[in-house]
Amino acid sequence: MVVAIVGVGLIGGSMAIALKEKGIASKVLGVEASEQHAKQAKELNLVDEIVSLNEAVEQAKLIVLATPVDAEEALLPEIFKNLDQQVVMDVGSIKQKVIDVISEHPKRGRFVATHPMWGTEYSGPEAAVKGAFVNKATVICDKENSDADALELVKGIYDALDMRMVYMSADEHDIHVAYVSHISHITSFALANTVLEKEREEDAIFTLASGGFESTVRLAKSNPSMWVPIFMQNRDNVLDVLNEHISQLRKFKACLEKENYDYLQELIENANKIRRIIK
Amino acid sequence: MVVAIVGVGLIGGSMAIALKEKGIASKVLGVEASEQHAKQAKELNLVDEIVSLNEAVEQAKLIVLATPVDAEEALLPEIFKNLDQQVVMDVGSIKQKVIDVISEHPKRGRFVATHPMWGTEYSGPEAAVKGAFVNKATVICDKENSDADALELVKGIYDALDMRMVYMSADEHDIHVAYVSHISHITSFALANTVLEKEREEDAIFTLASGGFESTVRLAKSNPSMWVPIFMQNRDNVLDVLNEHISQLRKFKACLEKENYDYLQELIENANKIRRIIK
Repeated sequence: MVVAIVGVGLIGGSMAIALKEKGIASKVLGVEASEQHAKQAKELNLVDEIVSLNEAVEQAKLIVLATPVDAEEALLPEIFKNLDQQVVMDVGSIKQKVIDVISEHPKRGRFVATHPMWGTEYSGPEAAVKGAFVNKATVICDKENSDADALELVKGIYDALDMRMVYMSADEHDIHVAYVSHISHITSFALANTVLEKEREEDAIFTLASGGFESTVRLAKSNPSMWVPIFMQNRDNVLDVLNEHISQLRKFKACLEKENYDYLQELIENANKIRRIIK
Repeated sequence: MVVAIVGVGLIGGSMAIALKEKGIASKVLGVEASEQHAKQAKELNLVDEIVSLNEAVEQAKLIVLATPVDAEEALLPEIFKNLDQQVVMDVGSIKQKVIDVISEHPKRGRFVATHPMWGTEYSGPEAAVKGAFVNKATVICDKENSDADALELVKGIYDALDMRMVYMSADEHDIHVAYVSHISHITSFALANTVLEKEREEDAIFTLASGGFESTVRLAKSNPSMWVPIFMQNRDNVLDVLNEHISQLRKFKACLEKENYDYLQELIENANKIRRIIK
């Protein structure tokens, strides 16, 4: 089948590779706002052809929307203007606001809202990799609002990609990702700024930084064009979690200030319970 | 040469493996406060024999102190009571307070204060691994206060272990590690507590947690018996960095509250500069 990838970056590009590899896409059309990324996507053979959004909607049976979430909001009404029986799936990090855009549209059923839980701190077509999604989870939101055939098509694709499908409402999804993804990015950005602000001896960091530092700070390399729209769209949930996180940090601060090391021990023992959740 | 490892855990155990492997230690004596760890250290062949601290000091040419830093403070005077021409090196995460314990001792020169920049979130003899230190940095502090032969012995060992040696004062060391190690651990502990406190649906975290979450939270599995003493000994530096970190997080919070997304973009762009420091 002909598949159009709208936004051929880290996720869209990796999806293009996977769909070709699994024989799902006979032809991949790329829609790309950045000329440089369009050129790279062609050169890297991620897509067979770069076309306009209208051409993509006209020619493809499946349209995969893989842009930053603000562009999703802008592009969805355009896509739906010319939509017939094609299936549109998105792979964005926030679901409610995007769904809201077309929730009243008569063709709402052609849309399947998904979020494959994979990414790296890199972006653009050159960041796309083979085998990106294997054994990862993917969320499908508000599935009861998608047409049965559209949902089946998307499920078949994620199945072929060896992903575990998880179903939840867009609302629930947006709360959970604030915890498992968005707050990690904020702490990492803030940690990078802390170090860059106060530690003037960058040579020392460079020399001494070991695995622990690298793993907590690597997300700070993530692209603002992707993340600012995510934080905008998930503002309320992110603020909730961020407030809780700051108050958790203040407990550590209070322990040190008051030299209350018994409570510090308790806080760390409690944090150790995360072993229940991550191996 | 006969080497005594005092504290046969993650670091001491990995050091024992490396010293045997490189032919530096003909015999490894283990000193271990925990009976269970002593038993494991023997069973895992990390040490040839478990002995008392006094026996270790008497028989070994080199004594490697690899306990949590509070135990270091307690054990150093004991070791120095019976010290002749043996060399004592430590591998602890904090240097000033430990050096202070023996700085006025007539045998101060027999001590070499070091900190190999390697670790994992696991602890105990079973966490010890082969090849732990290869290509990592190791800090040697206040080297001018160590006897020339003692320093040469320790340099030769780190050289054989393929480590890059970095020299600095204990004071500088303790500031730098607050940035490159201690704050990462605090943010990770606090992040774990944030999630455990507010996100009641642990199944959802378990299902959705991807690489980003795991990498920022994995340090939260670290052992409080190691970390409470580190935070105690480096209290002032850690508080400085933690205060800065909380104020950096507040900037993100203010951006979201005021919906000032231009400034949010700036904050993230600034954080991206960490690419200069970590690859």
